[in-house]
Amino acid sequence: MEQQHEPRNMSSKNHRRGPWTIQQQHTVYENPWIKVDHHDVTAPTGKTGIYGTVSFKGGAVAVLPLADNGDTWLVGQHRFPLDEYSWELPMGGCPKDEQPLEAARRELREETGLSASSWQGLGHYHVSNCITDEQAWGFLAEGLEQGDTEFDDTEELAIQRLPFDEVLAMTLDGRITDLVSVAVIQRARLLGLA
Amino acid sequence: MEQQHEPRNMSSKNHRRGPWTIQQQHTVYENPWIKVDHHDVTAPTGKTGIYGTVSFKGGAVAVLPLADNGDTWLVGQHRFPLDEYSWELPMGGCPKDEQPLEAARRELREETGLSASSWQGLGHYHVSNCITDEQAWGFLAEGLEQGDTEFDDTEELAIQRLPFDEVLAMTLDGRITDLVSVAVIQRARLLGLA
Repeated sequence: MEQQHEPRNMSSKNHRRGPWTIQQQHTVYENPWIKVDHHDVTAPTGKTGIYGTVSFKGGAVAVLPLADNGDTWLVGQHRFPLDEYSWELPMGGCPKDEQPLEAARRELREETGLSASSWQGLGHYHVSNCITDEQAWGFLAEGLEQGDTEFDDTEELAIQRLPFDEVLAMTLDGRITDLVSVAVIQRARLLGLA
Repeated sequence: MEQQHEPRNMSSKNHRRGPWTIQQQHTVYENPWIKVDHHDVTAPTGKTGIYGTVSFKGGAVAVLPLADNGDTWLVGQHRFPLDEYSWELPMGGCPKDEQPLEAARRELREETGLSASSWQGLGHYHVSNCITDEQAWGFLAEGLEQGDTEFDDTEELAIQRLPFDEVLAMTLDGRITDLVSVAVIQRARLLGLA
């Protein structure tokens, strides 16, 4: 890891990225999930400054499982970066070599034990594009069958089965604040899918 | 900045954060907007591992300005971390010492030249809680009056005035992917406000 703390010039000086110019760039931190780079830049306006970015090595997938009776499932956990308990859709990471739909199938099965016979997309999002390149994909999963959960060995998860209308209300009254969950749940209602 | 690359122990060893235990923590990067910390942790399950987090020094505010005829405004810019052009609601940073509503008034005025006589909240969100503690607030702004823009000296922004129904459609067909914009626009329709 040590060499990541040493400045590394780009192969070409004054590298362009869209209307931005990167004078110099070096990686200040890297772990299996993220890479943090510091840049000396010239903004599109010509103003010089700095820009720190967080690159994600994978994306995120969130699944809205919908039972025949209209129920859905939420997963609860204490989110370490936030230091708060958070109720969310079943979700997880999508490594670069995994298709989002396959990651969604896997995460739904691991976190809720559910498998689904019918899948459709519920959006592709850029999560926080001022600092990161994080992407997220939403999915609706129907035709559900219950199996066993397979939690990651770092996850301590709670599960609730609730009517979709209650979960939608939770996105509107502040009980669900996770932005990916909010967007995917609200999109399902706007499209008349749930 | 150099001392930030040196490991710094917490004042108490085995510091608790909810069900997590932090064995050791050090800051690996800091700039005026974010701080990146590396942690050696014990997960709630008892498994040991690492966790890199990005702490935001401010939040984000996004404003849905709504004209009497139902039009709204989008702002376009090339987002450096993503290296893509992105159309979004007027938005910007909310420093810790500024109230979200005041930041919303300021960002709307700076980016569109609009001021509004009527404001209401359109949600409080945790943007990407797997890695960050970033928060965002949405607002609906009505009773609009046009003034002059005051762009930041790093911003090269384009502005579009469009019917709200068209902007809502853009969140559903992938022309708007910025997650904060998507959530705030869709919430306004679900609440019957736009």
